[in-house]
Amino acid sequence: MKILVVGSVALDSIETPFGKVDDALGGSATHFACAASFFSDVGLVGVVGSDFPKDHIDFLNSLNVDTSGLEVADGETFKWKGYYEYDLNHAHTLDTQLNVFEHFKPKLPENWRSPDILFLANIDPDLQLEVFNQVDKAKFVVCDTMNYWIENKKSSLDEVVKRVDLCLMNDSEARQYCSTHSLLESSRSMLSMGPKAVIFKKGEHGALMFSGSSHFSAPAFPLEDISDPTGAGDSFAGGFLGYLSKTEDFSEQNIRRAIIYGSVMASYNVEGFGTDRLARLTDDEIEKRFNEFKNIAHF
Amino acid sequence: MKILVVGSVALDSIETPFGKVDDALGGSATHFACAASFFSDVGLVGVVGSDFPKDHIDFLNSLNVDTSGLEVADGETFKWKGYYEYDLNHAHTLDTQLNVFEHFKPKLPENWRSPDILFLANIDPDLQLEVFNQVDKAKFVVCDTMNYWIENKKSSLDEVVKRVDLCLMNDSEARQYCSTHSLLESSRSMLSMGPKAVIFKKGEHGALMFSGSSHFSAPAFPLEDISDPTGAGDSFAGGFLGYLSKTEDFSEQNIRRAIIYGSVMASYNVEGFGTDRLARLTDDEIEKRFNEFKNIAHF
Repeated sequence: MKILVVGSVALDSIETPFGKVDDALGGSATHFACAASFFSDVGLVGVVGSDFPKDHIDFLNSLNVDTSGLEVADGETFKWKGYYEYDLNHAHTLDTQLNVFEHFKPKLPENWRSPDILFLANIDPDLQLEVFNQVDKAKFVVCDTMNYWIENKKSSLDEVVKRVDLCLMNDSEARQYCSTHSLLESSRSMLSMGPKAVIFKKGEHGALMFSGSSHFSAPAFPLEDISDPTGAGDSFAGGFLGYLSKTEDFSEQNIRRAIIYGSVMASYNVEGFGTDRLARLTDDEIEKRFNEFKNIAHF
Repeated sequence: MKILVVGSVALDSIETPFGKVDDALGGSATHFACAASFFSDVGLVGVVGSDFPKDHIDFLNSLNVDTSGLEVADGETFKWKGYYEYDLNHAHTLDTQLNVFEHFKPKLPENWRSPDILFLANIDPDLQLEVFNQVDKAKFVVCDTMNYWIENKKSSLDEVVKRVDLCLMNDSEARQYCSTHSLLESSRSMLSMGPKAVIFKKGEHGALMFSGSSHFSAPAFPLEDISDPTGAGDSFAGGFLGYLSKTEDFSEQNIRRAIIYGSVMASYNVEGFGTDRLARLTDDEIEKRFNEFKNIAHF
């Protein structure tokens, strides 16, 4: 199977208690594609400026990420600058320069109009809806979002949620979106809109999946060395959908395994800044950590 | 096996978004003993005032809790008044009247000086140390505590931690006690003091267990009807140690199962105010929820 991701590609300047980095390769589509590339063919649709280092494109291509849908526009690349304190759950933004991303209009390459799996990473829900217009068919569509769109474009976001097979959100976003503290109530409310399942990402507390009939709680991995949490959610999504694409099995049991592979990829992603850790990750390491997750969760 | 608990017995007045109750039977020793009584013989050491309703003692006895160590002192019973908002993780205290509990000196009945399992519920660590002087032998000793003692009696608490087999804390307390945001570092620091294992209770995010060699993550149960979170941690401890007492098996695998039984008892406890829900709980319901936990966690 083939996965298409539509989202942001950025240059991130990040400081955490464990180090700092300037203009590292980042963005939701980037982190997703890197993680998914360990399991599946991936195409990326996004936009960068003319300042975007060719090395970064070479790196994505070296992971077999198809960047034919990555537009290079006149101007500067989307730049984000932020820092984390010891409580690594919360990013503090210092500066956001949307640059070419401000006028981003996704354009799917001809050969990516029927992806098996489509991931609508966190972008303006109106753009997510526009992607539906360019897709002939897709077997499994998943969306992510963020608090900004919940606050400012709720009705467009509602339309997106109604049209996807599975919805990914942070737990705090789900509570905000559904106006309830209860994640169980949030899941019911979202499932009634259309998706067959929802996954709530809880950072250091793991992830929860609710479908109509079942509930799954994935633990987080107890990490020794968290360098940089940026991109954890997108690498989770990449591992999750990458595994589903590889196995071509959308059963409840396999979705549980896919959530653990997502958690594995997120746990590795945060061990380095930007895409550093995934750049040197091996398949053996992925399998090893999957088995460690089993040992953490089973009784 | 037999379990002895030393802790508080209180009359709680609680308001939550889901109801309110005045002078309900509460306290750390109470919630622990009620939960543990489903699995094991339990003795309770604590103090109440002359105003304490005989009905409450009859209720504890009806669960086969041995209250021969429950002193009735002149004066009023310990009273706590508080409320919870929709985020049920945080109790807001309106009033605390220590009353007879202020001068509590635990006195173990002769026939409870060699309990198989000893639970030092959340009381002044100097009193927890005093209990050690009255115990001839105990196979497995567990302590709980709270932020107040970490802030005000750290060195006494250190002595308690050094002498127990297993230490229970909320995750926020463990971070505070060990001065680190990392629960992994907290666990290392506490294990180096003596305990063979630590369990960090995370409320709606479940519980983590660390031993020298292993890490276990127990999920929380997705509850429809949380009425009152008071006593969740103590009923967790009661189910946990009750199951260990019943099975007489302190292996790593059985400790994992015991943590799930603890989670089961906590999940039922919060479905009612005070001890209401446990008062009408059945063994079948306990087994049913244990199996549901398996279904939530396994992949």
